[in-house]
Amino acid sequence: MPHQGPSIRPDRLKTLLDGVNRFGFDVETGGFNRPGFSDEDLACRAWFGDEMRKDGLRVWSDGAGNLFGRYGPDDGPCILAGSHLDTVPNGGAFDGSLGVCVALECVRTLKDAGFEPATAIEVLATSEEEGRFGGMLGSQAIAGLATADWIARARDADGVRLVDAMTLQGLDPRAILSAARPAGTIRAFLELHIEQGPVLEQDQVSVGISDQVSGVCYLEYTFNGIANHSGTTPMSMRSDAFAGLAELAHQIPQIIKQAGTDQTRITIGHVVLEPNQPHTIPGKAHFSVILRDTSESVMGMLRDMVHDRALDVARKSGLSLKSAERSWLPPVQLDADLANRLETLAGNMGLATKRMPSGAGHDAQTMQSICPSGLIFVPSRNGISHSPGEHSDWVDIERGANLFLQALIELGK
Amino acid sequence: MPHQGPSIRPDRLKTLLDGVNRFGFDVETGGFNRPGFSDEDLACRAWFGDEMRKDGLRVWSDGAGNLFGRYGPDDGPCILAGSHLDTVPNGGAFDGSLGVCVALECVRTLKDAGFEPATAIEVLATSEEEGRFGGMLGSQAIAGLATADWIARARDADGVRLVDAMTLQGLDPRAILSAARPAGTIRAFLELHIEQGPVLEQDQVSVGISDQVSGVCYLEYTFNGIANHSGTTPMSMRSDAFAGLAELAHQIPQIIKQAGTDQTRITIGHVVLEPNQPHTIPGKAHFSVILRDTSESVMGMLRDMVHDRALDVARKSGLSLKSAERSWLPPVQLDADLANRLETLAGNMGLATKRMPSGAGHDAQTMQSICPSGLIFVPSRNGISHSPGEHSDWVDIERGANLFLQALIELGK
Repeated sequence: MPHQGPSIRPDRLKTLLDGVNRFGFDVETGGFNRPGFSDEDLACRAWFGDEMRKDGLRVWSDGAGNLFGRYGPDDGPCILAGSHLDTVPNGGAFDGSLGVCVALECVRTLKDAGFEPATAIEVLATSEEEGRFGGMLGSQAIAGLATADWIARARDADGVRLVDAMTLQGLDPRAILSAARPAGTIRAFLELHIEQGPVLEQDQVSVGISDQVSGVCYLEYTFNGIANHSGTTPMSMRSDAFAGLAELAHQIPQIIKQAGTDQTRITIGHVVLEPNQPHTIPGKAHFSVILRDTSESVMGMLRDMVHDRALDVARKSGLSLKSAERSWLPPVQLDADLANRLETLAGNMGLATKRMPSGAGHDAQTMQSICPSGLIFVPSRNGISHSPGEHSDWVDIERGANLFLQALIELGK
Repeated sequence: MPHQGPSIRPDRLKTLLDGVNRFGFDVETGGFNRPGFSDEDLACRAWFGDEMRKDGLRVWSDGAGNLFGRYGPDDGPCILAGSHLDTVPNGGAFDGSLGVCVALECVRTLKDAGFEPATAIEVLATSEEEGRFGGMLGSQAIAGLATADWIARARDADGVRLVDAMTLQGLDPRAILSAARPAGTIRAFLELHIEQGPVLEQDQVSVGISDQVSGVCYLEYTFNGIANHSGTTPMSMRSDAFAGLAELAHQIPQIIKQAGTDQTRITIGHVVLEPNQPHTIPGKAHFSVILRDTSESVMGMLRDMVHDRALDVARKSGLSLKSAERSWLPPVQLDADLANRLETLAGNMGLATKRMPSGAGHDAQTMQSICPSGLIFVPSRNGISHSPGEHSDWVDIERGANLFLQALIELGK
């Protein structure tokens, strides 16, 4: 069945995305640097605000730095549509930015088609989604989840305080809490994002519809052994902290097989050995275990099993174990009705879709706490993200954006 | 059978060792810093030379910075006796220094006893044994193994050239090659050293006699995978470089069981992951494999097996493997006759000994290329070395030093 009604203009969308990516481009790496509240981030959002103004939208920023462009009735509730414009350091061209650009391109298309929504559409670029300061500041502020205590304590990896970073940009951090939107003023939130994983590409499906976001548990472990001479210490007399870590890591596939699901992800991504010298048996192995699943009870079982195995390895290898649970974010169920509606719309458009959980965190999971929220994925080439190698095909983007457009029309009726 | 003849004076020996360890002491860590050709190293050796002069020894330094103190006939061959005074950064109080002090204490004891050796005894403090510049400069120069090419290229970990470090201390690096001792001028070399391992302590034996030194192979490996998002990338679609490393490390005990001996040591001591971020699947794992055995053919088999397993892991895990053999030092057989004589002497003294290979490198292995060389070990508490925690019991040291004394008497006859 051919697609009915208006369609987005991929060329105009690409020009808009290129415009965003003039900010923070690193010619040496090919990556983009627009960390939350950096000069590049602020300049990019100012430029994007001007673009929306040129389109005749009513544009403003809230106390948390979120940027809005409203199309449709001045009063009454709205459909929020967007994502974020900030990037991780040396990030890619699509993560976040694509979703904001798609939202504006959809509004432009509606305007061109003379479609005036009964419910206003607000294009949204959230602030500081990438977690420079450890949260998703913009959407959390909108959802009323930011707290004065957290704001006062938040620092980036270099120790820069959130309040200082905002003040430096002429923003008043005391205004963050005023960004909370009153109940009932947002009818729904819709976000398009790149998948940042390989599943859609592998399955050759252009559009993913996410109905849940995995929870994340961050465990921090240290095996303590004895740093000793690699030549003089017989294998049987060692307390080798790295050998212990390798033994534990080796058991991960088996742990997932026993207690996990096909949505389970366990990753050891950060390892620091001491003294980390070739000729010395490692006396310390400090490492992270990131554990994700869409079921909180499965997460609990996995965490307990990893911990038991770590204790077991320590006991058998003459090591001691120090452990800490740094964070526990439970899984989030996105709005099932909205996911179903997106699926039906896609079906009407003749578009194959895949229902899938999101392994990464997104603004949609925060917004779900105050309104039905939907999340549309487009494929990532080789599943690569947070890197200059990030890429999505324009054929896929066009399909995802047209689904987004149809959803706005439906929701705005 | 009680010990006959003169005995060393532990109190005087301890005072001498304390004198050495006034140089380079770090009050914060309790460790010692006398890297080869540092100010502290030079000051220590100057002080030690003065001590020997006070004892009436004929004292000089050669072109490589080795310090000699000769006792006995001015002419003719000598017995060389000693070790080194330099330390690793933040090293212990015993490694090397104990052997030099024991040699001088033995000469002092012989003098006190009115013993005049038929063959001269030269107390030796070799220069730069700890390998700041990647070799064992002092003993290699004496043995005629230093080459002009190596000297010109040698740099420390900070990039400082050996020739510059020597020049800065007023030493002429062109004189290094002149330190080679003519054939026949050294009848034997005797070294006492701490074990730096836990074997003697575990076996409750005060004295070890080493008849061989393990060979060392330094392999450098990199597993290359794909750095990807830890949440969005299913376990089955990963190319996780660290998971590959863990799988290989897990197989080491099995490799040793299949192809190793009780002298085999395989150590992964240095690991660098990229990007080394908790939430990112490691795209690169760069690591060292240090492999030791007393048999060169066993070393060869172990190296091939480690390499085959690494290739196998790479193939199964979607990784590529980059490998380099950074160095291959074959095992050294020390003089069997001399080891037997030391054992017999110890037996005559009623001293239990243990024949054992040395897992660490020592000056004795270099000297063996020009003269029969013997190596006596005393126990290291908990096997700890290259650390402020390094310690040897004075009861054991006294026994080892008295064996050293008897050996000098025997060899000097």
